[in-house]
Amino acid sequence: MRQTCFLVIVNVLVLFTVGTAFGDAAPVSDATQECLGCHAIYHPGIVADWQKSRHAMITPKTAMTVDEMQRRMSGSNVPEALQATSVGCAECHTLRGGAHADTFEHNGYEIHVAVSPDDCATCHTTEREQYSKNIMAMAEKNLSENTLYNDLQRSILGAAEVKPDRVHFTPANDMTRADACYYCHGTRLQVTGTETRDTDAGELEFPVIAGWPNQGVGRVNLDGSRGACSACHTRHRFSIEMARKPYTCKECHVGPDVPAFKVYSASKHGNIFSSMNNGWDFNKVPWVIGEDIQAPTCATCHISLTVNTDGDVVNPRTHQMSDRLGWRIFGLVYAHPQPKSPDTTLIRNKAGLPLPTDLDGGFAADYLISADEAAARRATMQRTCLACHDTSWVQGYFQRLDNTIATSNQAVQTATQVMASIWGKDYAHGLAANGSIFDEYIERRWSDIWLLYANNIRFVSAMAGGGDYGVFEDGRYHLTKAIMEMKDWQQTRDLIMKKR
Amino acid sequence: MRQTCFLVIVNVLVLFTVGTAFGDAAPVSDATQECLGCHAIYHPGIVADWQKSRHAMITPKTAMTVDEMQRRMSGSNVPEALQATSVGCAECHTLRGGAHADTFEHNGYEIHVAVSPDDCATCHTTEREQYSKNIMAMAEKNLSENTLYNDLQRSILGAAEVKPDRVHFTPANDMTRADACYYCHGTRLQVTGTETRDTDAGELEFPVIAGWPNQGVGRVNLDGSRGACSACHTRHRFSIEMARKPYTCKECHVGPDVPAFKVYSASKHGNIFSSMNNGWDFNKVPWVIGEDIQAPTCATCHISLTVNTDGDVVNPRTHQMSDRLGWRIFGLVYAHPQPKSPDTTLIRNKAGLPLPTDLDGGFAADYLISADEAAARRATMQRTCLACHDTSWVQGYFQRLDNTIATSNQAVQTATQVMASIWGKDYAHGLAANGSIFDEYIERRWSDIWLLYANNIRFVSAMAGGGDYGVFEDGRYHLTKAIMEMKDWQQTRDLIMKKR
Amino acid sequence: MRQTCFLVIVNVLVLFTVGTAFGDAAPVSDATQECLGCHAIYHPGIVADWQKSRHAMITPKTAMTVDEMQRRMSGSNVPEALQATSVGCAECHTLRGGAHADTFEHNGYEIHVAVSPDDCATCHTTEREQYSKNIMAMAEKNLSENTLYNDLQRSILGAAEVKPDRVHFTPANDMTRADACYYCHGTRLQVTGTETRDTDAGELEFPVIAGWPNQGVGRVNLDGSRGACSACHTRHRFSIEMARKPYTCKECHVGPDVPAFKVYSASKHGNIFSSMNNGWDFNKVPWVIGEDIQAPTCATCHISLTVNTDGDVVNPRTHQMSDRLGWRIFGLVYAHPQPKSPDTTLIRNKAGLPLPTDLDGGFAADYLISADEAAARRATMQRTCLACHDTSWVQGYFQRLDNTIATSNQAVQTATQVMASIWGKDYAHGLAANGSIFDEYIERRWSDIWLLYANNIRFVSAMAGGGDYGVFEDGRYHLTKAIMEMKDWQQTRDLIMKKR
Repeated sequence: MRQTCFLVIVNVLVLFTVGTAFGDAAPVSDATQECLGCHAIYHPGIVADWQKSRHAMITPKTAMTVDEMQRRMSGSNVPEALQATSVGCAECHTLRGGAHADTFEHNGYEIHVAVSPDDCATCHTTEREQYSKNIMAMAEKNLSENTLYNDLQRSILGAAEVKPDRVHFTPANDMTRADACYYCHGTRLQVTGTETRDTDAGELEFPVIAGWPNQGVGRVNLDGSRGACSACHTRHRFSIEMARKPYTCKECHVGPDVPAFKVYSASKHGNIFSSMNNGWDFNKVPWVIGEDIQAPTCATCHISLTVNTDGDVVNPRTHQMSDRLGWRIFGLVYAHPQPKSPDTTLIRNKAGLPLPTDLDGGFAADYLISADEAAARRATMQRTCLACHDTSWVQGYFQRLDNTIATSNQAVQTATQVMASIWGKDYAHGLAANGSIFDEYIERRWSDIWLLYANNIRFVSAMAGGGDYGVFEDGRYHLTKAIMEMKDWQQTRDLIMKKR
Repeated sequence: MRQTCFLVIVNVLVLFTVGTAFGDAAPVSDATQECLGCHAIYHPGIVADWQKSRHAMITPKTAMTVDEMQRRMSGSNVPEALQATSVGCAECHTLRGGAHADTFEHNGYEIHVAVSPDDCATCHTTEREQYSKNIMAMAEKNLSENTLYNDLQRSILGAAEVKPDRVHFTPANDMTRADACYYCHGTRLQVTGTETRDTDAGELEFPVIAGWPNQGVGRVNLDGSRGACSACHTRHRFSIEMARKPYTCKECHVGPDVPAFKVYSASKHGNIFSSMNNGWDFNKVPWVIGEDIQAPTCATCHISLTVNTDGDVVNPRTHQMSDRLGWRIFGLVYAHPQPKSPDTTLIRNKAGLPLPTDLDGGFAADYLISADEAAARRATMQRTCLACHDTSWVQGYFQRLDNTIATSNQAVQTATQVMASIWGKDYAHGLAANGSIFDEYIERRWSDIWLLYANNIRFVSAMAGGGDYGVFEDGRYHLTKAIMEMKDWQQTRDLIMKKR
Repeated sequence: MRQTCFLVIVNVLVLFTVGTAFGDAAPVSDATQECLGCHAIYHPGIVADWQKSRHAMITPKTAMTVDEMQRRMSGSNVPEALQATSVGCAECHTLRGGAHADTFEHNGYEIHVAVSPDDCATCHTTEREQYSKNIMAMAEKNLSENTLYNDLQRSILGAAEVKPDRVHFTPANDMTRADACYYCHGTRLQVTGTETRDTDAGELEFPVIAGWPNQGVGRVNLDGSRGACSACHTRHRFSIEMARKPYTCKECHVGPDVPAFKVYSASKHGNIFSSMNNGWDFNKVPWVIGEDIQAPTCATCHISLTVNTDGDVVNPRTHQMSDRLGWRIFGLVYAHPQPKSPDTTLIRNKAGLPLPTDLDGGFAADYLISADEAAARRATMQRTCLACHDTSWVQGYFQRLDNTIATSNQAVQTATQVMASIWGKDYAHGLAANGSIFDEYIERRWSDIWLLYANNIRFVSAMAGGGDYGVFEDGRYHLTKAIMEMKDWQQTRDLIMKKR
């Protein structure tokens, strides 16, 4: 087989010199041709995927000449050397080699394994800049460097040991973390050494990378940057089509903590998408509401550049998703205005805890956007709603969302009062007893309420997602049940203690 | 932008005089052309959607000439004035203006916002009439005017307050109700006033409508009618295609109380649909079993006019879905024969409660269809089954359904006996103690059994839906677990009380 | 209508002599033409489905001449009489008549209702042979003849009766079993008599078959064989396309006990499939990775013959799915190496229980494959991974899987220790007390841990399935919660008992 590779290289070079399966493919650089020589045989899946990509079809030079509204790359300072060929293997995997800790010599090239947003920024400058202000870019840090969330994480992922008084949790190892929370939040990549592997092309040396593989949205890369464009623009097609389909968001937003996909797919919007999207155009830039699509996907409302059938901009493209969002409906432990900074480890509530809200429901207002800013962001979002719905529809809908945020926060407050009473009676070990507030059964029932059920209820309201997710499917039916169980649990303890 | 609108009107008028994007679109009325003048720019999504609709393609006059079997409109007395143009904005939103409380003057026209089934009945007479006998048409009333269901609703949606002896629930406000149960059941629309809005076309006055927006199946409209055709025939395409796809039913039947979609999608029928529907014809009337589709969707069995490849009718179209159903498998608290009247608020059981069954499992037979009627309805349904399956297959399948109805009802009876025993010992406050039977934890576990698990089990059986939803996914595994928990809870209380 | 049938036969004979809707359909045998004469009218769905099938398109004779790599049938000794016509109704339903207990005289033909894998083996010899070594072929026996699993089954499906000390379960009847576990595992078919039915073609006699209908993977057929090819190759298209789509696997693997489909659909692979499969070729043999598909479905990794774009075999076809699997990640009660024999009723653990693992986590090693064999099977699987991913990616991924298997087994061990302690204190009746270990609430919480949550966690790891199913959706969040509840339950009992 080893000899085969070199024969194959010759064949493939011919193939790729003449052109790929796509007649109108852009010229391939010499370096990329060498990559393809072996990898088209070894990794046919990703090579074929790339061949169908826009990266294989068009050179940066041509892409830069596209009219502004239709342009898909925002950079205007692409290095001369990259302009005339397709964006192939070598273009990305040899870019900024000095910046990447995993750069290694491979058949005469300085290759790095993990391509980072700072590499992509060479052509997609604005998107990368916006994304750095997106809370998702900080997803690894916001979880791993928040002491309170770390304690919650320990009680979920940790190794359980049953002690006489309670269950003790040892923090999970790195591999468990990578397989769980950090699959979405992103791992911290680290070169831990090198290894020699006996490959079809002979013995070769490769870097060993801890935290690899990972495509989480807040991945800490080997050039120090944060994020992974491939989380949504899946390698090696990197398509706008896939990023615009709701299945992409589903990977991390299936719930029940953040049940966006499930709620969407049971909503009227999701029904129209599922039933009718066969004839829709998911590749068009700008995206024409009504013409290209007749109902929104996640991207339509949160990210995409959209226009009406007259070509007027409805909303400009953004990769800082929060700029269309006033509220953060994910309860910590209450829904709250969006944080000012994507780095939420900076936040401290009244009690000094790294939480955007107090346990009694107050907001850590210094760290959160103002009411005016929230209103402005909501108005931005509403421009998309109004492309299909009249003002009375949109107003009625947002009034209900505000009501649902208020009532669900109120329910969390009620549950937290019961929890506080249980801690007060020393039936469970709270913060006052120097205990974890996440490692006992009744505490987990409390977190069910704000981490699962209240979130479900708010997502349903925010996405007009239908009755079931708001009621029977992780909704109000379960929220009130959990409050009843907390009360029942306390009553049982009271009854037992009275007999003492 | 305001000036833009008037310029735009001119352009659009030209466009729509010449025709829409569809070469063969029907002529547009002058009134609708005026609507489109502004709204094509302001609301491109719904205008484009309408332009792809049959309503835009064909006039009622032409539609009435279609052969009976192919006809999609049942009315034959369409007013002369509506016959010669497409069914556009003005045709529906100015129809029967005097009947609608939300009618208002808008640029010289008397417009109403919420189009009702009685408007649609102008052309779709038979369907509207059938639908009024459908229990779905009464979905708002059947929930809001049943005192017992209202108490259940209060304990699910209500604002919780923890009192010393139990959790107290204040009834939910209208917005919460609209965001939860009544999203599907339908809200009660009400004009509460008018407001002046500063629009792109200047200051305009609009009605303010409480309960808006809503597309629930039992919506109480501003002309007093009940229902919303747009629940299934989504605005503004109003297509038969979307109504025939299971995603539409999913909006309200995703479960776990009525898990029809989930069960279907894990069934053999659902698998065939998901895997192979790309080449199916969802628009054909009548629907040819075998030719147009090779497996049923929800609509095939419950609603559609179907024929065999020879053109013989398998089942006629119905919008009164229950006429193919003998049993109502939704437990209240037991599965029971279909109610005689769609208005279930009339029903009283032996104890005088507004329930179709007694708490010990008996049926409120006076209000439910007879065994003969149930058999006749089942035979109607079976005509569809028999279009693909032989008699032994169909018999075996329905025997299992009967068995599952009997055994699941028996399990609910067992659970209810435990509940009665708990009430009897005063461990929880039942009806005898003048209490709610829905507001304590152990009562919620009891309702889990009949409202979630027993329903899942029956839906699986009714739709040949595979093992998982019948066992591990909200099925028998969870039903028996809940019975065990009820017993365990009672034992714990017994143990505590013995120590007194 | 009866007269109609005979007229129809004439028409249909003409139709089918000339050819079906497919111009290039294979010749239909005389016997099959007679079947179609009536059944095309009575059962248009299945006839039309068959007409679209490869069985209707091509004769075995032609199929046998196809080049080996493209061949879809492995048999080379197809009886002369079957070679020259399409594979129609009569070809399968009259095959090996003497072997089938349900063979009956029907319009001059000896027909059997339930076609079995041994019938299919006539043309698909290798697939049938491989499948018999597949643990799925033994799914009925492995459940129904394992005393311990039977006890679990009784506590899930059985009729509950509440006795003073606990809930007593009577074993479920056959119909309940067929409607639940055995829908997937397969029923045991049995001819219980004959019945005369008044049909459109006059009075006819048919066999009565208990356990019918069923398409479970381990169905015990009326010729004594085990399995149902139609479980995945749905009747009467029997297509490779459907079997290659994940919706087919979903029928039995939706979870939460074996949540393969749900995990896949939230994985990167599932996202690519859902977003992009419109242009993929699900019918091509061999299946070209990269060209035909750009991401794997279930079949790609577990069953299909795959090649790279150069035509080199990546993995040969197998219908013995376990030959690419080292570990069985389905906990009984721990994940363990694959069993040596598909008949798992042979297995005994240290305590003599029919379980592949001891309750303390040890393996019943004599009955399970060796570490070497497991490594070899993993290497086979990895050949598919490596068609798209480099070695470091694949290594990192499998290291995490091993880690997850170890940590999830450890968590089950912790839970089992708590359970043992509860049994030891006589708070619940365990094996030592001659009790069932599955019929009390706290025991069900223990089985939740290994039967639902630990499995979810492992499936996520095995399929790179994203964070939510590994954490919040039946994952670690719920596993640790259940351990906490077990501890809490024990503490409550301890508190009560101390008061004695």
